[in-house]
Amino acid sequence: MKRCVVLLSGGIDSSTTLAIARSEGYEVYALSFRYGQRHVVELKRAEDIARSMCIIHHTVLDIDMGQIGGSALTSNIDVPKGRAISEMNKEIPVTYVPARNTIFLSFALALAEVVDADTIFIGANALDYSGYPDCRPEYLSAFESMANLATKAGVSGKARFKIVAPLINLTKGDIIKKGLELGVDFSLTHSCYDPDPEGRACMRCDSCILRKKGFHEAGMTDPASVVKI
Amino acid sequence: MKRCVVLLSGGIDSSTTLAIARSEGYEVYALSFRYGQRHVVELKRAEDIARSMCIIHHTVLDIDMGQIGGSALTSNIDVPKGRAISEMNKEIPVTYVPARNTIFLSFALALAEVVDADTIFIGANALDYSGYPDCRPEYLSAFESMANLATKAGVSGKARFKIVAPLINLTKGDIIKKGLELGVDFSLTHSCYDPDPEGRACMRCDSCILRKKGFHEAGMTDPASVVKI
Repeated sequence: MKRCVVLLSGGIDSSTTLAIARSEGYEVYALSFRYGQRHVVELKRAEDIARSMCIIHHTVLDIDMGQIGGSALTSNIDVPKGRAISEMNKEIPVTYVPARNTIFLSFALALAEVVDADTIFIGANALDYSGYPDCRPEYLSAFESMANLATKAGVSGKARFKIVAPLINLTKGDIIKKGLELGVDFSLTHSCYDPDPEGRACMRCDSCILRKKGFHEAGMTDPASVVKI
Repeated sequence: MKRCVVLLSGGIDSSTTLAIARSEGYEVYALSFRYGQRHVVELKRAEDIARSMCIIHHTVLDIDMGQIGGSALTSNIDVPKGRAISEMNKEIPVTYVPARNTIFLSFALALAEVVDADTIFIGANALDYSGYPDCRPEYLSAFESMANLATKAGVSGKARFKIVAPLINLTKGDIIKKGLELGVDFSLTHSCYDPDPEGRACMRCDSCILRKKGFHEAGMTDPASVVKI
């Protein structure tokens, strides 16, 4: 059975990506991170999502990115609220976490090598996103080239690592429709960058605004709009 | 003052690299990792080395690579002993840690972006080494390309990240001579992959054997041969 690693944050994109990987017949190794994010509630959701899709292998790694800081998600900088979607692609916001996807993909690469997987799925999306540089196709392609030079499996020819971003050119609405087709229970997902202590979404950060747009495009009510605790 | 990040493990190579970076006039941010290595004594040595070179900024990050495993350095696989140096380049040994340098460089990139550094020094060496794929120039070059696509600073043109490996083509003997010229106190360094509980080197792993060869080539006794605890 072919194997893959899926980066799973517990949001709409990574949950849909997980469902896509599963639907393609992969044995899935889901990977999440406790990286000092203020929205650590997403990890509980990642576990719920993995369980709801009967994913047996789910690893949560502790990595100390809080010490590095430099982002509204990992330090005391305020998360911007109420930005128009048209603004989001213009300037990289303070919610950008330096080198986050590079760090996540590096751990995914390590795990892939250890479990004999050659494919890494990431829910990166370059349409409805906050303008992060490490969500673009050219970045993912450069990571893939590097990955095959970095590893014993890559160098020996045992594996040809592929970084797969199946959502890269989809709108948020398309992603939600795709997830629904594949049976994703979006009521379990979490998107907000700045939830209250009970895990309730702020509804005003970029991530909440894009989520709202997506459900609007998909013609449905967000099933997580009454957020579980 | 120009700034750099230096990956510092507390061994001969990274200590010499730190001295080189300092001698080139950089304000240095040293970065070490508690990654589940069995030779965690190296972190104490990294601190001693940083202090001996008056490095003010030294970050030690906890990252949970032990959960990934796949290496004699992070799991219960035995460290090979007594290998001939001629064997070391032929096959990648079980001390290879999947994607380790990629993970380390990714964190270094994050730190570099946060502290406004554009240069990352790594003590990778492709001559006297254990044949690890992530110590080769083509790998480092691919990481550099990826890094400039991955980051806000790289994409905006604020920084052009460079991965610098000043030891890449030096023998262990040359590295030691270079370190001595720059005042590195090698009695503080640690190389052994499999020290005893008191931190004493085994003298038989690849790393000990290469260290011994280096001091022999440099025509001197290893000042750490009576290992401090």
